[in-house]
Amino acid sequence: MVRGANDNITTIAFTEFSVAASSIDITQELTQVLTPEQVMLDPSSLETYGQDWTRFTSPAPSAVVFPRDTADVVAIVECARRCEFALVPSGGRTGLSGGACAANGEVVVSMDKLNTISTVNLTDRTLTVGAGAITQNVQQAASDAGLFYPVDFASSGSSQIGGNIATNAGGINVIRYGMTREWVAGLTVVTGKGEILELNKGLMKNNTGLDFRHLFIGSEGILGFITEATLKLTAPPKDPTVLVLGLSDMRAIMSVLDRVQSTTPLLAYEFFSELAVSKVVEHAGVTRPFETQTPFYALVEFERENETTDAHVFEAVQQCMEAGWVVDAVMSQSVAQARALWRLREDISETISQWTPYKNDISSTVSKVPQLLSAVDAVVHQNYPDWEVVWYGHIGDGNLHLNILKPENLLIEDFKARCNDVSTDIFEAIKTLGGSVSAEHGVGTLKAPYLNYTKSESEIDAMRAIKSIFDPDGILNPGKVFSSG
Amino acid sequence: MVRGANDNITTIAFTEFSVAASSIDITQELTQVLTPEQVMLDPSSLETYGQDWTRFTSPAPSAVVFPRDTADVVAIVECARRCEFALVPSGGRTGLSGGACAANGEVVVSMDKLNTISTVNLTDRTLTVGAGAITQNVQQAASDAGLFYPVDFASSGSSQIGGNIATNAGGINVIRYGMTREWVAGLTVVTGKGEILELNKGLMKNNTGLDFRHLFIGSEGILGFITEATLKLTAPPKDPTVLVLGLSDMRAIMSVLDRVQSTTPLLAYEFFSELAVSKVVEHAGVTRPFETQTPFYALVEFERENETTDAHVFEAVQQCMEAGWVVDAVMSQSVAQARALWRLREDISETISQWTPYKNDISSTVSKVPQLLSAVDAVVHQNYPDWEVVWYGHIGDGNLHLNILKPENLLIEDFKARCNDVSTDIFEAIKTLGGSVSAEHGVGTLKAPYLNYTKSESEIDAMRAIKSIFDPDGILNPGKVFSSG
Repeated sequence: MVRGANDNITTIAFTEFSVAASSIDITQELTQVLTPEQVMLDPSSLETYGQDWTRFTSPAPSAVVFPRDTADVVAIVECARRCEFALVPSGGRTGLSGGACAANGEVVVSMDKLNTISTVNLTDRTLTVGAGAITQNVQQAASDAGLFYPVDFASSGSSQIGGNIATNAGGINVIRYGMTREWVAGLTVVTGKGEILELNKGLMKNNTGLDFRHLFIGSEGILGFITEATLKLTAPPKDPTVLVLGLSDMRAIMSVLDRVQSTTPLLAYEFFSELAVSKVVEHAGVTRPFETQTPFYALVEFERENETTDAHVFEAVQQCMEAGWVVDAVMSQSVAQARALWRLREDISETISQWTPYKNDISSTVSKVPQLLSAVDAVVHQNYPDWEVVWYGHIGDGNLHLNILKPENLLIEDFKARCNDVSTDIFEAIKTLGGSVSAEHGVGTLKAPYLNYTKSESEIDAMRAIKSIFDPDGILNPGKVFSSG
Repeated sequence: MVRGANDNITTIAFTEFSVAASSIDITQELTQVLTPEQVMLDPSSLETYGQDWTRFTSPAPSAVVFPRDTADVVAIVECARRCEFALVPSGGRTGLSGGACAANGEVVVSMDKLNTISTVNLTDRTLTVGAGAITQNVQQAASDAGLFYPVDFASSGSSQIGGNIATNAGGINVIRYGMTREWVAGLTVVTGKGEILELNKGLMKNNTGLDFRHLFIGSEGILGFITEATLKLTAPPKDPTVLVLGLSDMRAIMSVLDRVQSTTPLLAYEFFSELAVSKVVEHAGVTRPFETQTPFYALVEFERENETTDAHVFEAVQQCMEAGWVVDAVMSQSVAQARALWRLREDISETISQWTPYKNDISSTVSKVPQLLSAVDAVVHQNYPDWEVVWYGHIGDGNLHLNILKPENLLIEDFKARCNDVSTDIFEAIKTLGGSVSAEHGVGTLKAPYLNYTKSESEIDAMRAIKSIFDPDGILNPGKVFSSG
């Protein structure tokens, strides 16, 4: 139980960590280690910083604090240990699993002020950034130096690098460049004990025992705060070209992938349904790729290395049309056209957010995607016959996003309960296929009750034990990742 | 203290794990859980399986056991816990840090029989192999399917995948393809508690909490046994072409790297000294690349994508010659020529092994290599003015191998002691540069006393705590990674 900074929140039961009772005034304690401008208590800030893009919990933090450097984070952690209150790390708050939500009087630690971006080291092909650096600004810094930071997704304009690393963000280029994990050469973290760890220091090669860099990547704030990262960069792709294909049915998606991938290495292979297209056309002002409406679409991106690449791709698409998999197709002829086609895919998530979608971010190996699609399709047809279901995903990585839109007349709690019931059917199918209940969004609070569909009890026990090493007092992001049940 | 299976070894003091005294006959216990053919006790097997390519300890295991599947490994672990004896995992025994040495009556667990290689899954671009699969056989299986397993090094003909993963093996292609870590999509491990963990299951995307796959990669057998791995594959490089350059001096190495790398993406960038060349020419029958002898050489490998690549590379080399960095050069015109040139680099390690070299496998970021080279050069000149010192390394990754050859008249223990004394000077320089005391060979026993030059005390404490989660009885590879001091 902890005492909150505002009167509305006086006692909070943490789901799993025993935090002793305390009558200390959190605000007073915080202002002793930070300047007054670094501590915000106004209702608007508490609301803004207490939630992410999920809208399933009501934000209710005690305070929001803004460290300016790693030492400030250490001071905040030490204060939290001494005064027994909980901390929630906060980046761009674009998370989709509730991992950065503060609904129980925690103190939110925003990384907004830790947003430095170093100059690019051209020999090492790295740059070093504060955890609060915006993804798009990092991409731009790399680009200005003639290099490329390849992790990209719809929220890159507001998501922060620290959050990306804490959730091992994926996105649209994983098929070619992998997850955020692959691009982290070094990390500075502050553990729940207030220790600063400098992990891997930007080295390409360093085999000196357990690599904690990879333990903190994807750890969703339960082990420590990421305050700084050294990111790897690469050469930019040559003339990325986009192809949008109208597909005859869901099954065509894998046949087309196999055919196109055998022609040229892909930068992206995305999938979305006609309902997704109609939503972005109507609500985001995006233009249809062609007049023909098909039940599903694929977006293919590849490098136009030379004239023969075009010819090969054109031939592959022709064959897909002859096989009846592809009904219509369009290929970008300029950067502007490529960008416009990408909006068909990238605008989906934000467009449908107004319907408080229940997101299933699931995966299997790529070869099991046909089984995954048919299993999920069966569950959806049976359980939501009259609800709007938006399908999309990074299908080239085996990753499917299934979004169930909340009917207008249903209360959020009832909607969530019904979705949760059905989710277990989907997760059972995933377990059978050896898939994941969270491909790229992380566990947070939303997927915590379902973690055991992907991870074994032994693994979950070991995860809890490792948390207790780095966060012995359980002050870091309580209630996230692990189910309280 | 444990009782050994052979009379010569009756009590063993473990450096860090308390193993209670026991009077159980290890052999008898092992033959109750394995067939007699799976347990070897003859002196020749004990000698062979009790050591790796380092020759600094005398092999003295109690027994060597050969599990045939993961269940056998579980049975061995349970037996070891019950009867309180220590286990040492053993792959191809090509390690260079003593991580697989058994010098204290431990039972060696050889993965030789766990050597299955699945057919390649072309859609997933993966294959699944037993821990004992030989690296070269895996490369061949990938190649037979038109794909490529890019982790490669001099010992690929005898090293095993399990060992590669346990040491996060690097090698000659890291500049382009990264370490072994990047190529592991799934792992089956048996912990020191005898639990089987199926880690990541071959998924491309799976963000469900801490990724223990990456905790076990590079863990050198202190957390559990790797019994099976799903490896990622990629498309093979196009027409790999090798260039060997004779360099005017040590400083030229980085100037040439910068110039060549700006021309074309590199598959490899290796470095070796004239003494290394003279050793492989004299003892391995390798042909010199050209008549000119230069103090240092660079081996560059790149993809010959088309005719213009050749022209660009030729121009870059020309400029390096005009700048005085390159004195002579040769470029392969066939696969056979490329292979022959590679022997200049790949045969060094085995050739010099007859001098029981003291190996320093060190790294910094690439941009700090000039500082690393001059710091190490100063130490070497001061301390070994009349000893043979062989320089080589994967310099494009910031990785330098410094091999000090044992003078014939010096006892191994005296040699080792003198090298250790000097190593601390090198490691102090590395610490100042934020580098690593083990770039790719791992810690094992040889680097354990120096771990604190790269890892902080907090990290080492956390590593010990994590070991105690997965191996509470301390039966796994005692004395490795952590110093007993």
